Amino acid sequence: MNAEVIAVGTELLLGQISNTNAQYISKVLSSIGINVFYHTAAGDNKTRITDVLNIAFKRSELIILTGGLGPTLDDLTKETLAEFLDLNLEKDEASASAIESYMKKRGRPVTAGNLKQAMFPQGSLILPNEHGTAPGAIIKKYDKTFIILPGPPFELKPMFEKYCLPQLAEYGECKIVSKILKIYGIGESMVEEKIKDLLLNQSNPTIAPLAGYGDVTLRLTVKCSRTDEPEEWFKPLESEIRNRLGTFIYGTDDESLESAAAELLKKNNLTLSVAESCTGGLISDLLTNVPGVSKSLIESIVVYSNQSKSKRLEVKKETLTQYGAVSEQTAIEMAKGIKHSSGSDIGLAVTGIAGPDGGTETKPVGLVYIAIAYGNNFCQVQQHQLIGDRRRIKITAANIALNLLRMTVIDNWLSD
Amino acid sequence: MNAEVIAVGTELLLGQISNTNAQYISKVLSSIGINVFYHTAAGDNKTRITDVLNIAFKRSELIILTGGLGPTLDDLTKETLAEFLDLNLEKDEASASAIESYMKKRGRPVTAGNLKQAMFPQGSLILPNEHGTAPGAIIKKYDKTFIILPGPPFELKPMFEKYCLPQLAEYGECKIVSKILKIYGIGESMVEEKIKDLLLNQSNPTIAPLAGYGDVTLRLTVKCSRTDEPEEWFKPLESEIRNRLGTFIYGTDDESLESAAAELLKKNNLTLSVAESCTGGLISDLLTNVPGVSKSLIESIVVYSNQSKSKRLEVKKETLTQYGAVSEQTAIEMAKGIKHSSGSDIGLAVTGIAGPDGGTETKPVGLVYIAIAYGNNFCQVQQHQLIGDRRRIKITAANIALNLLRMTVIDNWLSD
Repeated sequence: MNAEVIAVGTELLLGQISNTNAQYISKVLSSIGINVFYHTAAGDNKTRITDVLNIAFKRSELIILTGGLGPTLDDLTKETLAEFLDLNLEKDEASASAIESYMKKRGRPVTAGNLKQAMFPQGSLILPNEHGTAPGAIIKKYDKTFIILPGPPFELKPMFEKYCLPQLAEYGECKIVSKILKIYGIGESMVEEKIKDLLLNQSNPTIAPLAGYGDVTLRLTVKCSRTDEPEEWFKPLESEIRNRLGTFIYGTDDESLESAAAELLKKNNLTLSVAESCTGGLISDLLTNVPGVSKSLIESIVVYSNQSKSKRLEVKKETLTQYGAVSEQTAIEMAKGIKHSSGSDIGLAVTGIAGPDGGTETKPVGLVYIAIAYGNNFCQVQQHQLIGDRRRIKITAANIALNLLRMTVIDNWLSD
Repeated sequence: MNAEVIAVGTELLLGQISNTNAQYISKVLSSIGINVFYHTAAGDNKTRITDVLNIAFKRSELIILTGGLGPTLDDLTKETLAEFLDLNLEKDEASASAIESYMKKRGRPVTAGNLKQAMFPQGSLILPNEHGTAPGAIIKKYDKTFIILPGPPFELKPMFEKYCLPQLAEYGECKIVSKILKIYGIGESMVEEKIKDLLLNQSNPTIAPLAGYGDVTLRLTVKCSRTDEPEEWFKPLESEIRNRLGTFIYGTDDESLESAAAELLKKNNLTLSVAESCTGGLISDLLTNVPGVSKSLIESIVVYSNQSKSKRLEVKKETLTQYGAVSEQTAIEMAKGIKHSSGSDIGLAVTGIAGPDGGTETKPVGLVYIAIAYGNNFCQVQQHQLIGDRRRIKITAANIALNLLRMTVIDNWLSD
């Protein structure tokens, strides 16, 4: 079954928002073996929505429309589709009363626009919206399946998962499943060098390298029958790649440097505290996105002033005066200071110049020191010269720090 | 001039990445009055790329293709376009030597694939790539303009801005310029209620409301001649909206709650310190994205353990035992504690349960207390019951806290 995702909304064509719905839907459909061959976006304009419906109708069997289900006059998806399929719009009583009770709960009046959201092309299978007022629908006609979904991602995703996926799963003849290997601490070209022969001789699974924000990913994609266990298909290739790349691989799929580091801390019963200067809380924010990290993370201090560095981390005033806040010496004292004052097993520290101002000839924007203190007075420190704007420097520095944390635990606490 | 953006890449259709290039290009083109009517994405497949070229050729005058310019065999954009336009591919010597020196600088060998990146349809105007190996090109034929750009956004954006925009600006007959008013602390329906008459009688500029993650935006869009100053068009409507919504409006366009709060701190020479529990450093990360905030932000402490709350913030052990870490009392002591111990003008504190675990019947996941201490022992505290997953609870709590900070400065230090 070939699918196409059509996004409706002028805000997409003005560049106000990005079409993340198409990404989400494509990922889910691929996983059940439905090929998505096209994404399209068109504005809130009846003629152009009709045009893209005509094109999609010729080339796709499953057509998913997102957006344009709102209460206002420029929301035209259902109206246009009904006309296209020569169907009348009918009021769905269950949706109408769901909308009324949704609005009542919030103390808001029910408008005519809201009731427009309860109108559907005849014969629609209604998809309830548990996170907003616009229900979705599945409509089958002329051997094609049309699905209409609300635009806001936090409404679309739960609706799609709960009400569409179970129905769609039976259409997939085969499965296309991807598994992402995530790599940090080695460049893309070096990765390719190490697995050159595997890249040249790839078949099923295929291997696609992609370089990101300092990390590299390898996407393994397997095409197998619906009853196959894709993990069996990945196993030989993945294990060969792991042999070549070792601990440069920090995780798979949705795993992140922070989840890998947090997992290692938990497994080894280690406590951590963090002292951040230029990353400004980002390392801590990333780590605390991982559920359960509260067992390992004692505290994190964003020491954004010299006063704070001295008071909270015992950084010596002389060190700050002699070497400056951005220096190897300060980074070391920060790491040791946060470890000692919090009584944790590991102290991680970052100091640097995120810019755009604050750089000098000897200490340019992007200069970052990252230190990690552990055990009986061990401390490792790294100097990096990063590029990019303020946000990119923060992200890159945070990732390097998280990877240093990960490698430190692996090197000192894990023995295979 | 009507434009269309075609993204080429199977990774888009597998949902591995989101098509942010289409968003970026659309935003820029709109700003110079070039209408983008369609976005399309197709995979790395010659037949399907040709099909979308055929469709685009019929309906658009400017066709921008992104991606598929890489060194590997599945990168087909130039090859397919050349065939479509009946043009040969020719080697561009300047690009070839630029690629060679780019690779040499990085100590990497020049492969045949790299030299494929120097091949272009006859008559191409080459767009140098200063951030990677794949140059872009502008090709004009049959009264249409084709632009091909590399896929990675950090290569595409500078190339587009530097080499395409100056040429495209002359095509725009009029300008379509949008201005976003950003609103926090009031729901979408209340916003619409307050400006109902303006929404009903809109013409030029138009007004489009959009609800986001707890905030609401109003997009004002004006269509004016290329020589007009769009700000003049916005002024009467914007000032009327501001009269109605007052300080609920925290900024415009790329401004954020954190930049608005940071600006207010700076303007009033105020210092701030933050104590975060469930937000885990996010408030601090957001604030430190704002350049120059180091003058206002003394420190931020992520007190992720009771030990840290007591030691760093002077939160009483009895308070933690009697009321718990997530309580009004703890939030107040955290705010007062961070203000006092850092010696700042304002202390902002958040404590709550971000989930997925840790909730109880009386204190469910999403329960959050936000406190702000200032002046001579003033302290305000708010209780919120938030919904969503761990990340969404963190984001919503951080935004409420930043807005509370903003309103506190406005109410106590600003007198108009």
